[in-house]
Amino acid sequence: MFEKKPVGVAVIGAGYWGSNLIRNFAGHPACELRWVCDLDLDRARGVVGRYSTLAVTDSVDDVLGDPTVEAVAIATPAATHVTVAAAAFAAGKHVLVEKPLAATVADGRRLVELGAEAGRVLMCDHTFCYTPVVRRIRELIEVGMLGDVQYVDSVRINLGLVQPDVDVFWDLAPHDLSILDFILPADRRPVGVAAQGADPIGAGKACVGYLTLPLDGNAIAHAHVNWLSPTKIRTMIVGGSARMIVWDDLHPTQRLSMFDKGVDLRADSASTEERDKALISYRTGDLVAPALPEYEALRGVVGEFTSAIREHRAPLTDGNAGLRVLEILEAATQSIANDGAVVPLKDDR
Amino acid sequence: MFEKKPVGVAVIGAGYWGSNLIRNFAGHPACELRWVCDLDLDRARGVVGRYSTLAVTDSVDDVLGDPTVEAVAIATPAATHVTVAAAAFAAGKHVLVEKPLAATVADGRRLVELGAEAGRVLMCDHTFCYTPVVRRIRELIEVGMLGDVQYVDSVRINLGLVQPDVDVFWDLAPHDLSILDFILPADRRPVGVAAQGADPIGAGKACVGYLTLPLDGNAIAHAHVNWLSPTKIRTMIVGGSARMIVWDDLHPTQRLSMFDKGVDLRADSASTEERDKALISYRTGDLVAPALPEYEALRGVVGEFTSAIREHRAPLTDGNAGLRVLEILEAATQSIANDGAVVPLKDDR
Amino acid sequence: MFEKKPVGVAVIGAGYWGSNLIRNFAGHPACELRWVCDLDLDRARGVVGRYSTLAVTDSVDDVLGDPTVEAVAIATPAATHVTVAAAAFAAGKHVLVEKPLAATVADGRRLVELGAEAGRVLMCDHTFCYTPVVRRIRELIEVGMLGDVQYVDSVRINLGLVQPDVDVFWDLAPHDLSILDFILPADRRPVGVAAQGADPIGAGKACVGYLTLPLDGNAIAHAHVNWLSPTKIRTMIVGGSARMIVWDDLHPTQRLSMFDKGVDLRADSASTEERDKALISYRTGDLVAPALPEYEALRGVVGEFTSAIREHRAPLTDGNAGLRVLEILEAATQSIANDGAVVPLKDDR
Amino acid sequence: MFEKKPVGVAVIGAGYWGSNLIRNFAGHPACELRWVCDLDLDRARGVVGRYSTLAVTDSVDDVLGDPTVEAVAIATPAATHVTVAAAAFAAGKHVLVEKPLAATVADGRRLVELGAEAGRVLMCDHTFCYTPVVRRIRELIEVGMLGDVQYVDSVRINLGLVQPDVDVFWDLAPHDLSILDFILPADRRPVGVAAQGADPIGAGKACVGYLTLPLDGNAIAHAHVNWLSPTKIRTMIVGGSARMIVWDDLHPTQRLSMFDKGVDLRADSASTEERDKALISYRTGDLVAPALPEYEALRGVVGEFTSAIREHRAPLTDGNAGLRVLEILEAATQSIANDGAVVPLKDDR
Repeated sequence: MFEKKPVGVAVIGAGYWGSNLIRNFAGHPACELRWVCDLDLDRARGVVGRYSTLAVTDSVDDVLGDPTVEAVAIATPAATHVTVAAAAFAAGKHVLVEKPLAATVADGRRLVELGAEAGRVLMCDHTFCYTPVVRRIRELIEVGMLGDVQYVDSVRINLGLVQPDVDVFWDLAPHDLSILDFILPADRRPVGVAAQGADPIGAGKACVGYLTLPLDGNAIAHAHVNWLSPTKIRTMIVGGSARMIVWDDLHPTQRLSMFDKGVDLRADSASTEERDKALISYRTGDLVAPALPEYEALRGVVGEFTSAIREHRAPLTDGNAGLRVLEILEAATQSIANDGAVVPLKDDR
Repeated sequence: MFEKKPVGVAVIGAGYWGSNLIRNFAGHPACELRWVCDLDLDRARGVVGRYSTLAVTDSVDDVLGDPTVEAVAIATPAATHVTVAAAAFAAGKHVLVEKPLAATVADGRRLVELGAEAGRVLMCDHTFCYTPVVRRIRELIEVGMLGDVQYVDSVRINLGLVQPDVDVFWDLAPHDLSILDFILPADRRPVGVAAQGADPIGAGKACVGYLTLPLDGNAIAHAHVNWLSPTKIRTMIVGGSARMIVWDDLHPTQRLSMFDKGVDLRADSASTEERDKALISYRTGDLVAPALPEYEALRGVVGEFTSAIREHRAPLTDGNAGLRVLEILEAATQSIANDGAVVPLKDDR
Repeated sequence: MFEKKPVGVAVIGAGYWGSNLIRNFAGHPACELRWVCDLDLDRARGVVGRYSTLAVTDSVDDVLGDPTVEAVAIATPAATHVTVAAAAFAAGKHVLVEKPLAATVADGRRLVELGAEAGRVLMCDHTFCYTPVVRRIRELIEVGMLGDVQYVDSVRINLGLVQPDVDVFWDLAPHDLSILDFILPADRRPVGVAAQGADPIGAGKACVGYLTLPLDGNAIAHAHVNWLSPTKIRTMIVGGSARMIVWDDLHPTQRLSMFDKGVDLRADSASTEERDKALISYRTGDLVAPALPEYEALRGVVGEFTSAIREHRAPLTDGNAGLRVLEILEAATQSIANDGAVVPLKDDR
Repeated sequence: MFEKKPVGVAVIGAGYWGSNLIRNFAGHPACELRWVCDLDLDRARGVVGRYSTLAVTDSVDDVLGDPTVEAVAIATPAATHVTVAAAAFAAGKHVLVEKPLAATVADGRRLVELGAEAGRVLMCDHTFCYTPVVRRIRELIEVGMLGDVQYVDSVRINLGLVQPDVDVFWDLAPHDLSILDFILPADRRPVGVAAQGADPIGAGKACVGYLTLPLDGNAIAHAHVNWLSPTKIRTMIVGGSARMIVWDDLHPTQRLSMFDKGVDLRADSASTEERDKALISYRTGDLVAPALPEYEALRGVVGEFTSAIREHRAPLTDGNAGLRVLEILEAATQSIANDGAVVPLKDDR
């Protein structure tokens, strides 16, 4: 294989997520990590450690002015994404942005436009889309193993940090929404969103939240996000007309289970009155838990980002994917203001 | 102890639930089971078995005309409850009704009134309220172990029978709603309900449903009911300001776990801006799984019913409890018609 | 199908296991239950209940003298099996005996001989062999799905009743040994047994026990039986050259898991020195959890017993199967006396 | 606190375990990592990565000749430990050795003597003894929460690498044995060991193994080690007269459970005959799962090693602890040769 030139990269933001990005960019053969940048220089130094040759700086200008830096990964607070990324595009860099893409749909849309104008890659770090299990779910749906998707139910709860800047929807639901965006087929797109939140601890923002998304084809998706749960749960169920799957992310030896069981409605139902009784049947078949490869999702993110750069193409989770997630989050906020009624989503995809 | 005279009882309806009632009435020392009544006499005979002395009949008149019968347990379809129970009250019998109390709030209210006029016990068979685990949860809340209740999240999903007469809300949610009615303190009553349903298999009724109930005190309750889930889940999480509990009904050796962990907001928050950062703290303490006695809940139902009769008092889960559940179910149906917006609940409790 | 005449049956012994037998014989269409016999007449009455037409007696003679009784099920203490069964054979009855077959190999052998002389069915109630899961395991081994069996590891521990008459080996290990006897192919028979026990509570008998059975073909089986475990575990792992299975009896939704993974040793190993490094390979394939029917094992026991009687044939778990289990138990007792060294088993099967 | 001077350290052996040591020594403030040494220089370079200032070498002499190196961590094959460590002691270095301490008891004893003669710290890397859970178990036993230890049962099985140089006992059992050595009180020391192994795949060494250790006080310990298991299990049960604990290492949210339940034998047993029936009672109390801190055990190993060096004291898991483990392993090998009979252990502790 023809060896591609490694991509010179800098990571901006050395907090929790930034440090994971640094480790993965440093360890990936397709990159050369040039800079670690953080306003707090000590934090940057702490992350690279005592035995590192990596350059650290507290100046974004150092990074953007370095011609060996072709791309930046931005892991700063969401509200700052648009400013930092705009500067990066202006300097001709490709950009990877931590989720959510931006703090508002307007900002997110601006980012997408700037990337397009600059002719640079804009990728949103929807990390879960690069896990072996989500890739497999997408594939199983794509090849028809599940039949028509009927419902998706996602639970993402634990005793989590109450974030200073965002509520539980904006903190946790981007994961669920980006996964939905990634796995759902074109005939099962969300047509609206209803949201219910609660702030029982007086934190000044929702700490417990429920999202319901009617999907095309009478299907439904739902997500429960919660910072106050004593027990950690990370499950997603996808029910289909042919098979159903359960993803339990905290069950590492059997993350994904596919059940060959379900409810069938026979198509030849003579009359409406009778069909409830006579024409529903149940299948109870075997369970199959596919063997999944084990690798870190962020390694896949780094690989996709560098490949998209070298191949001059949009990445799997591009700015538009990030924008679709933002649109649902803003509609959810509006639904809460409307007593939980469904807010329709424009279909501009 | 002074021995009370056993209560003469008949069970009307020998289907799935009726056969459980028959077994429990037959085995309880406080009762004498006189009749098993079903329109399908063969079904009644099949339930009592080949070696039984129990009288079977297909005539409710046989039962109601028997002066040794003091009480009847009704396990017929919900729509027939009001007729059968009205006849029973007219004949001077006490009445136990399978959940839901009736098919409509109007019918349920009529039942409550008829019972009161007849001066007879009307009990709704909210079976789960008589399980060791739900009794313990109520007790833990009552004595303040959880502090203020912040949220309740209930999941009740499996591959279930699509019922001919009711949707998934009316089939499964009575369990969740009766438990909530039983355990929630007076300052955490539901003030409204929002509901979202889906019928992805074309069954003509909702097969997947989500209920959200805003509670007094900025708290929230939520239930997920689902007939199409490949995997069976029966969990309820109750988050409190002091402790949190998880009830996993499919984990028989550790059904109930109480976590001494949570999120605290310190009361002395000087200014709104600062409190998010400075004044939230996390506790991570031990988990305690209380030892629970093992007994069948229906045995407790039979015991409470007979005690209420002999002690001339209302049972723990009386007609009004059944009526409150009906009111929420009807409001949920209305919410679905209103695009999922919250429908307020009248507070007449 | 030609309807066979129901078999007239009596159950002798109305303790814990006897009451299960009574329920199953009473509920099975191929039987007519004539008597429930127990030295403690009140216990017998309590088991049949207030609404039963079943005859009870404290006299075995009543039972054996009744010509409508063709067969008896004996659920009395193990030491009494030989006397009761001998009388039953003398009266021309067929006999089902609770495990273990008898208290000694000598008694067990006598029972087998008496049954043969009387020309009557002798069946040992190895209940687990009639569970859907054990039947499936036997089938999977038989058809070659596992390849060559390499090892079997069984754990059967919980906080159990310290039995007055037997130690933990004689109480619990008959389950494991009867299952092994049922599932292992002819080329994997036990060739010896080593046993280690402990009595850390001073009960006067082993309360914790370990059995190791070298099998033909360099394979091995092992069982851990324990009355003192705070946690209940019921697992059996069967490793094979092609596939491996795990049976977790306390995981009702996934009792049986078959793993298409293992360790392969390539046959073309050039030299002994190299093969460790070069010629071992690992397979990691999917897991399949077969759908299993749900029925009570004792119903299968009753069905097999009555079929064997009507078809004049030996039942699946006949007296010889019970005898083989006894031989291992006696050899285990001898191994304990020999400091745990392996005691060879005679191969007279 | 008075800051101690960091300890200059080198890691010898950059394989799987060595790379973990390197990461932990590099990240610990009490050390300065000077060298990474491996015969395969590329492997050493690969482990430190592209952005590291760490010195790598393939010469042990480089390491031992460096006066800034006060201590070495040896993660080479067991058979080489004695040679490398002897050279390190001769050069005046302190030594941490990966488990097992050496390939034979004789070598292990020599290492202990050399360390003593050189006046240097010899620590055996019994990593599990530095996990939060094992520390807590030791503490619970020490303070009497469990009462008298009655039995210990350990299971450590998975689909593992068939090692070229050692069998499954020498590969896996050092973990169990070092934990036992660490947690058991002085009145529950092993008095012997019996072992049974099997090589059903023809690997030329035991791949499945069972160890039984009679303990002082009629107690018993047992370990199941297995390279061929399709499913990974890591559990240890410790039964005590007062309470019992279960450690399930693959259940990260509830690694340790303490059960306030058990079997009591009342002390006032009048006669032997009666006590079985009358004087055994069962307690069924609550389960408590203590909150455990989360940290990497190897960080604790590094901390203990450096503290022992600076404080001129023996580490918690010194050479003698490693030697006691070796003695049991050699006795187990002898037991296998003796058909599994118990081999007594000398009590020289």
